[in-house]
Amino acid sequence: MASRSIRLAVIPGDGIGPEVVAEGLKVLEAVAPSSGLAFEQTSYDLGAARWHRTGETLPDSVLEELRGQDVILLGAVGDPSVPSGTLERGLLLRTRFELDHYVNLRPVKLFPGVRTPLADVTPDDIDMVVVREGTEGPYTGVGGVLRKGTEHEVATQESVNTAFGVERVVRYAFEVAASRPRKKLTLVHKDNVLTFAGDLYQRVMKRVGAEYPQVTTDYCHVDAATMFFVGQPQRFDVVVTDNLFGDIITDIGAAIAGGIGLAASGNVNPDRTAPSMFEPVHGSAPDIAGQGKADPTATILSVAMLLDHIGAGEAARRVEQAVSDDLAERGALGTRSTVQIGDAIAKRVSG
Amino acid sequence: MASRSIRLAVIPGDGIGPEVVAEGLKVLEAVAPSSGLAFEQTSYDLGAARWHRTGETLPDSVLEELRGQDVILLGAVGDPSVPSGTLERGLLLRTRFELDHYVNLRPVKLFPGVRTPLADVTPDDIDMVVVREGTEGPYTGVGGVLRKGTEHEVATQESVNTAFGVERVVRYAFEVAASRPRKKLTLVHKDNVLTFAGDLYQRVMKRVGAEYPQVTTDYCHVDAATMFFVGQPQRFDVVVTDNLFGDIITDIGAAIAGGIGLAASGNVNPDRTAPSMFEPVHGSAPDIAGQGKADPTATILSVAMLLDHIGAGEAARRVEQAVSDDLAERGALGTRSTVQIGDAIAKRVSG
Ligand SMILES: CC(C)[C@H](C(=O)O)[C@@H](O)C(=O)O
Ligand SMILES: CC(C)[C@H](C(=O)O)[C@@H](O)C(=O)O
Repeated sequence: MASRSIRLAVIPGDGIGPEVVAEGLKVLEAVAPSSGLAFEQTSYDLGAARWHRTGETLPDSVLEELRGQDVILLGAVGDPSVPSGTLERGLLLRTRFELDHYVNLRPVKLFPGVRTPLADVTPDDIDMVVVREGTEGPYTGVGGVLRKGTEHEVATQESVNTAFGVERVVRYAFEVAASRPRKKLTLVHKDNVLTFAGDLYQRVMKRVGAEYPQVTTDYCHVDAATMFFVGQPQRFDVVVTDNLFGDIITDIGAAIAGGIGLAASGNVNPDRTAPSMFEPVHGSAPDIAGQGKADPTATILSVAMLLDHIGAGEAARRVEQAVSDDLAERGALGTRSTVQIGDAIAKRVSG
Repeated sequence: MASRSIRLAVIPGDGIGPEVVAEGLKVLEAVAPSSGLAFEQTSYDLGAARWHRTGETLPDSVLEELRGQDVILLGAVGDPSVPSGTLERGLLLRTRFELDHYVNLRPVKLFPGVRTPLADVTPDDIDMVVVREGTEGPYTGVGGVLRKGTEHEVATQESVNTAFGVERVVRYAFEVAASRPRKKLTLVHKDNVLTFAGDLYQRVMKRVGAEYPQVTTDYCHVDAATMFFVGQPQRFDVVVTDNLFGDIITDIGAAIAGGIGLAASGNVNPDRTAPSMFEPVHGSAPDIAGQGKADPTATILSVAMLLDHIGAGEAARRVEQAVSDDLAERGALGTRSTVQIGDAIAKRVSG
């Protein structure tokens, strides 16, 4: 069969990034032929090494090249040798903002056989999707510092929220909720303290919700939500929340669903005006880099999300199933290397 | 022996507030005589009922009366019939800001015999104190809304952080850390995204830390911290963090240490320029109000913190020990009412 060609940008990044990306690509290549897909890969050297060499985080020319791709796979960026925030703001967040990744999609799902730190929960109890806003809120970088270094220093950070930005992410979340069996959407915010932003989210939820009578809506303060993630994860089906709250609760989500080694994410531009970017939630983990110890599963699950995004749902399901089967057997298998896990999953999808 | 007289303001509040406060006071009265303390109580009618009756949250005259007290015990305020934020901002946060409660002290401690939702942890694994900043950060109320209700609406919230405000809370946290066996202080922030505020916290940590060479310091992004609370709570001894991050992580702290029914807190003005306020972390829980079901333990532990604050350390230890003993036996005791738990603990401290 004639295959559809997809331009794939790959940003391996730092630390364990290149190691897990290699396994993600292995699985992608394994599933591609039988799905009628061919990936034209371009690898981009971005991250700590480039910054040290050239001082660049994301040159404009590279950003323009990325815009010409269909989709992006990112490993992880960051290194303790680079001042905190440099790569995060200059590369990761810049990409999210410039490519208008206004949906940061983060499934929180406990696969059978996976150990969770929570007592008494089963896979049925943890199965949600967090729709995190990706292009505004406290992540805008708006703010500043006055009288730095003096006893009169003032440092501000501004959360900027717009009807435009909130409505589009809330609408997306309603769509996701409407597509799932439970059809429940919970807004997580802190509207009793962040009254201006919280009120905007609440009003938009109400207005857009009127178009989705089949979806049940609910509200939960972010502090209570973190408690429920730990104590009653069953409460949640789809969650919509702002950029910062989403950052925080998806890490708890990762923790309860078996750890950061399994948490996948998509930085999605649903309007497809620019390529979306898929990446594991974890960071570059310099402490274990180069040792073949990193778990590539989060990246492989991000590859499944990438496949979904490009319309290859059947291939996405095969990757997910292969991961699920692999996870179910892990307890019996002892320690495996990054490559061994990648090989095992790749074998399942091609087999 | 001659007893020391303490002016105690009591704000029972809404929902289960009055029920749990009654038990807190019962324990306080039980421990007082043998500790040489006498409490002159004044009760303040504040909360949802008053707001409905008069439209007032915290009248200036009441605030002035509160200033004249030595210490405040609060139950909980809030009711779904009151617009979200009204009582929180108008009463609770106003009190914290006006009385300069710049330290929001929240111990996270798993008592023996208490069920935690985490598998494989013992009381030795969860024993930390969170020092949450209480008078600035994203809680200032600074912000606004432009073009409200239109598609061009913009809503902002500003986090304001000052060298003055950060230094005093960080210094307090170092003092707490220095007084504990492990002497470890972790800053929790998000300095890779909230670069201005994060950098201020980091510089102050370093500068003040130089005065406490015996304290080991550490830094953790808030998202990772939530994961560690669930997966590796042993990492933490004393945590210092901003107002919003503190709000969030202390709810996870409550969840892992046996639930919100046990979480105590102090809104402390360490300079004693105004009375400090002690309150359970939980809210007014209108769903179970009036049924004698609420657990008064968090309030009773807040009473212990109150006793510590007024210099009655020995009485505080007795209350804590009584709570600890009561908790150790709970599993065997079946369901008890609010009053029964209060009676049992009061009996232990007076006995
Ligand atoms: C690295 C950091 C900027 C990023 C974020 O805060 O969004 C990360 O924590 C994430 O969740 O993807
Ligand atoms: C009720 C609310 C304003 C308050 C806060 O956010 O501080 C509460 O959650 C708390 O933690 O004491």
